Amino acid sequence: MMGNQDVKLLNFLLSPVGRRVEWALKLKGVEFDYIEEDIFNKSSLLLEMNPVHKKVPVLVHGQKSIAESLIILEYIDETWKQYPLLPPDPYQRSRARFWAKLSDEKLALGSWIALIKKGNEWEKALKEAREIMEKLEEDIKGKKFFGGDTIGYLDLTLGWITCFLPIWEEIGSTQILDPLKCPSISSWKINFLSHPIIKECLPPRDEMILYCHRRIKEYSSTHRG
Amino acid sequence: MMGNQDVKLLNFLLSPVGRRVEWALKLKGVEFDYIEEDIFNKSSLLLEMNPVHKKVPVLVHGQKSIAESLIILEYIDETWKQYPLLPPDPYQRSRARFWAKLSDEKLALGSWIALIKKGNEWEKALKEAREIMEKLEEDIKGKKFFGGDTIGYLDLTLGWITCFLPIWEEIGSTQILDPLKCPSISSWKINFLSHPIIKECLPPRDEMILYCHRRIKEYSSTHRG
Repeated sequence: MMGNQDVKLLNFLLSPVGRRVEWALKLKGVEFDYIEEDIFNKSSLLLEMNPVHKKVPVLVHGQKSIAESLIILEYIDETWKQYPLLPPDPYQRSRARFWAKLSDEKLALGSWIALIKKGNEWEKALKEAREIMEKLEEDIKGKKFFGGDTIGYLDLTLGWITCFLPIWEEIGSTQILDPLKCPSISSWKINFLSHPIIKECLPPRDEMILYCHRRIKEYSSTHRG
Repeated sequence: MMGNQDVKLLNFLLSPVGRRVEWALKLKGVEFDYIEEDIFNKSSLLLEMNPVHKKVPVLVHGQKSIAESLIILEYIDETWKQYPLLPPDPYQRSRARFWAKLSDEKLALGSWIALIKKGNEWEKALKEAREIMEKLEEDIKGKKFFGGDTIGYLDLTLGWITCFLPIWEEIGSTQILDPLKCPSISSWKINFLSHPIIKECLPPRDEMILYCHRRIKEYSSTHRG
């Protein structure tokens, strides 16, 4: 482990986008202070460190604060060079960024909408999420990880598929990752979850279930009729 | 100019996100073939090169195709090292990426919605766009360009403010960039438009006006009542 370089991570235990940053720091062996945020009652530190979005995760490095999980991953990769997350080739980097953006915009958001919403919106989100999943299947075919032989930027970005999505699918009685249509992603899931650092840093199941039910309830109570 | 390295740009003359890629290639002195797309009747080349989004701009470099304008800018910067677009410091890079993402998601989209939509959506978009503009004002204060002394990644990303936004404001009779509240952005606009490469590569005013009217008409005809 590298010495503490005054690195803090403002995070929320059940945030899929926060988790990727935590994994990245741990893979790089960067020591950091973890600060858990109550996202229902945000701290003045969070509001000060991320005044625009007021959201976790925020990486605080000395006097600098960085928001937006994908931008934080790039910062981490550029600041601590050990265990590179993005591939060295510009084209491969652009592919990783392309899938990361697309999967955040359509697959992650779609899967979440498929959990908490109903009707047309639910149907549209579900269809789109499944389509992106099948496209990702083509990208991972024949590889151990999206990053090749080791876990990289795109693996971390998609890591929520291995530990958050199964809970969402279970609670929502909806299948987004079909193991018959996506056998390579299913294998990747096992490879990813077997990594010692990932394994030690997974979101707790019971709390995730409670949290999902809370969000579904909140959504239904504000969208009646 | 560098020799032709088999670089093609699939673009649309009136695309604000396409324009930034064209500027980037020209600033770097990369020779390329410009291929104008009819976005109302997309070519099979476009559908083949960007099968996921089916949108311009697409950069084709040899056998590789890269979509998403901000990702293309990173690819260009990593592939052709002359005239760096992103700053060298990881924190400054993260700031540029943060503002680029935010301004694409809220300011550019908000300004476009403020042009073509009405009612609550119009009001919300306008408010948000103006807020982001004022935040950008703080970032550019005291600098010639967002990138410092030279035009960089964030300048190119925000370049649409100098040449597309004035037309949108004029047609929509809406002010998004208030020169009294944002004097530094107003000065930046002049600096940006004075650069010989930018100046030579601006969207034609008359065609922009026709195109905006077409999009407003299309929107109203599908959203009556």
